[in-house]
Amino acid sequence: MRDIDKGSITSPQGFRAAGIVAGIKPSGKKDLALVVSDLPATGAAVYTTNRVQGAPIGVCRQHLADGHARAVVINSGISNVCTGEQGRADARRMCAIAAEQLGLQTTDVLVCSTGIIGVPLPMQIVESGILRVVAALREDGGPEAAQAMMTTDTVAKHAAVELEVDGATVTVGAVAKGAAMISPNMATMLSVVTTDAAVPAAQLQQLLVRAVSRSFNCCTVDGDMSTSDTVIALANGAAMGGSVEPADLSPKGFEDLALAMEHVCRQMARAMAGDGEGSTKLITIRVTGGRTEPEARQVGLSVANSSLVKTAAFGNDPNWGRILCAVGYAGVEFDPDRVAVSLCGTPIYGNGQGIPFDARALSGAMQAKEIEIDVDLRSGAASSEIFTCDLTYDYVRLNAEYTT
Amino acid sequence: MRDIDKGSITSPQGFRAAGIVAGIKPSGKKDLALVVSDLPATGAAVYTTNRVQGAPIGVCRQHLADGHARAVVINSGISNVCTGEQGRADARRMCAIAAEQLGLQTTDVLVCSTGIIGVPLPMQIVESGILRVVAALREDGGPEAAQAMMTTDTVAKHAAVELEVDGATVTVGAVAKGAAMISPNMATMLSVVTTDAAVPAAQLQQLLVRAVSRSFNCCTVDGDMSTSDTVIALANGAAMGGSVEPADLSPKGFEDLALAMEHVCRQMARAMAGDGEGSTKLITIRVTGGRTEPEARQVGLSVANSSLVKTAAFGNDPNWGRILCAVGYAGVEFDPDRVAVSLCGTPIYGNGQGIPFDARALSGAMQAKEIEIDVDLRSGAASSEIFTCDLTYDYVRLNAEYTT
Repeated sequence: MRDIDKGSITSPQGFRAAGIVAGIKPSGKKDLALVVSDLPATGAAVYTTNRVQGAPIGVCRQHLADGHARAVVINSGISNVCTGEQGRADARRMCAIAAEQLGLQTTDVLVCSTGIIGVPLPMQIVESGILRVVAALREDGGPEAAQAMMTTDTVAKHAAVELEVDGATVTVGAVAKGAAMISPNMATMLSVVTTDAAVPAAQLQQLLVRAVSRSFNCCTVDGDMSTSDTVIALANGAAMGGSVEPADLSPKGFEDLALAMEHVCRQMARAMAGDGEGSTKLITIRVTGGRTEPEARQVGLSVANSSLVKTAAFGNDPNWGRILCAVGYAGVEFDPDRVAVSLCGTPIYGNGQGIPFDARALSGAMQAKEIEIDVDLRSGAASSEIFTCDLTYDYVRLNAEYTT
Repeated sequence: MRDIDKGSITSPQGFRAAGIVAGIKPSGKKDLALVVSDLPATGAAVYTTNRVQGAPIGVCRQHLADGHARAVVINSGISNVCTGEQGRADARRMCAIAAEQLGLQTTDVLVCSTGIIGVPLPMQIVESGILRVVAALREDGGPEAAQAMMTTDTVAKHAAVELEVDGATVTVGAVAKGAAMISPNMATMLSVVTTDAAVPAAQLQQLLVRAVSRSFNCCTVDGDMSTSDTVIALANGAAMGGSVEPADLSPKGFEDLALAMEHVCRQMARAMAGDGEGSTKLITIRVTGGRTEPEARQVGLSVANSSLVKTAAFGNDPNWGRILCAVGYAGVEFDPDRVAVSLCGTPIYGNGQGIPFDARALSGAMQAKEIEIDVDLRSGAASSEIFTCDLTYDYVRLNAEYTT
């Protein structure tokens, strides 16, 4: 598996993409993205589990019912959530217009929207934007599509890897956005994963669920699970001769592709946490010694969502009691006297009590752009790695001043 | 039921209390409290469900095993959590010294500690403090005891009510502390409830559990559940002639006392939320139309713990999408198209979409010291009321600079 420098969703063969300024965002920044497979492709998706869901999600579910899709149109600025029947009609219309321009069936097009909740889309602007974004499609347009998905993100998020699958050299690429309302299962996050491997829709769905569980579902900024979260995968088989109804991957091919999808999705999740609203540092929480992977993840997320841990990280404060406290209320059984905790590689807790450390030196180590918290539960062999960020003045400023 | 002005744990007959400067806090503020019943009393307690628990909790469990207790000694500044065997010995020793001074059995004394985690208690200071706090006991010492429990609290929290129970005029009083690491089930909160009603220990436990479920467990500042949370109730029967082994209250007497205990505990919970670290306003979330009370509480807590709702409240931003979003991920089944939401009395969401409102006027209304969010789930008759506060720059400042 080889990382591709500046890789994205257009790194796999047979995909084009674009990102343009449609005029939805008052800021005049890019706000409309499109990715298209030039060949028939299988599709899969994972959505937010929030009971309140954006209109685009219902449309994606319908259009993916047959396991095929060729394009995803994405706008940022307005999320098309809590917009009633009009919102559902608008989401369908975005697909229909893109399909018409691309010469596809409406059901071959998926749609995502991200931004403020409860505001109707300016459909005249969106419609004319779709005409222009189709005209702007390029074979290297993936990074621009990533830009056009951004809301409060400060960096565009994209990656790709190349690997061998069942004898062919294939590529897996991804773009993603998300900087707040980020919490597992999932967040104000959108991501599109493309591959030129040939994968049946059912296998693609399995691969995506597995990759998401170890990437986006291990990433939290503020514990708020959004109404729009969507991860879409498209596989067009271009590197394997193309195929409308591809045969199953071999067991080894499946595992190889699973690792690649997990890898690019983890890069996206890590980038989202590192770009968390107002954050100054990325925090990686590694939980080992869990009885099961879900339990290890639950403990890691409990630490990652603790406002007290996150503010202490911002203040470079080695206040390990807050870490222990969050491990304790994770809802997982363990023996507090056996747990071991390290911060930035320094053992700080074990045998039921604190381990003396040089507070000044550890506070200095915490000033790095990336810090690590290791929790060994010593009750099993399962592990999980969680990405989050610190809680800062700027998070409060950004979110106290978002609409007014 | 009549509120008693400046009431506290010494409002019921036969209780004395005190709060002094022992010297545990570097600030020189009060840090050691004691409350004592002059008569034998029954006792009950509810503790944190965190898997990591402070040493005092284990001691309280042992000493309350017989359903009787007469005194509670409380220190602030250091929480005696994650302090190993020495911490357990220190907690037992605090009870033993107080018991000796008061002429009681060690098991008649309960102990609570609140403050930083992982630091051993300075036992010489604590021991000499206990001698002095016993000497300082007064019949009106309740408010001073409340002061000595404070950590980052900005106001002392105490209340009392008078009512008739089974033909006698009895009083219920409470003190509490807590301003962060506050989350249901429960928080870095301590509270002591006293009454001069005569109540068997089993009934006292039932009354306390019910009062806590509708007060402290409906209060959240930051979603962090602490390792020390303890609510203790003492009933000495002084207003009903006293009794070592009191008879059961009548069903009506039980209900009357239940409402009184709920009332003073809710006053404490409301005061804690209003005094949340760095907060500028109290937020009350009223959930109606739930299928069950626990579900209604779950929805209210989901909204109350949303960093995005809390920062929007700080910014006086009527960003109702964030409220809907938090309702949606509460993990409770409901129909998003039937839910109705009001903010400061203004209907903002219904029939699956936003209701137009005057944003400037509503933002103005949000500048009040107390704001209300009403969520009607329209799926049943159960309700719950949750207290929380906004998330501000000062919360980040206080918690980024706590130990360093």
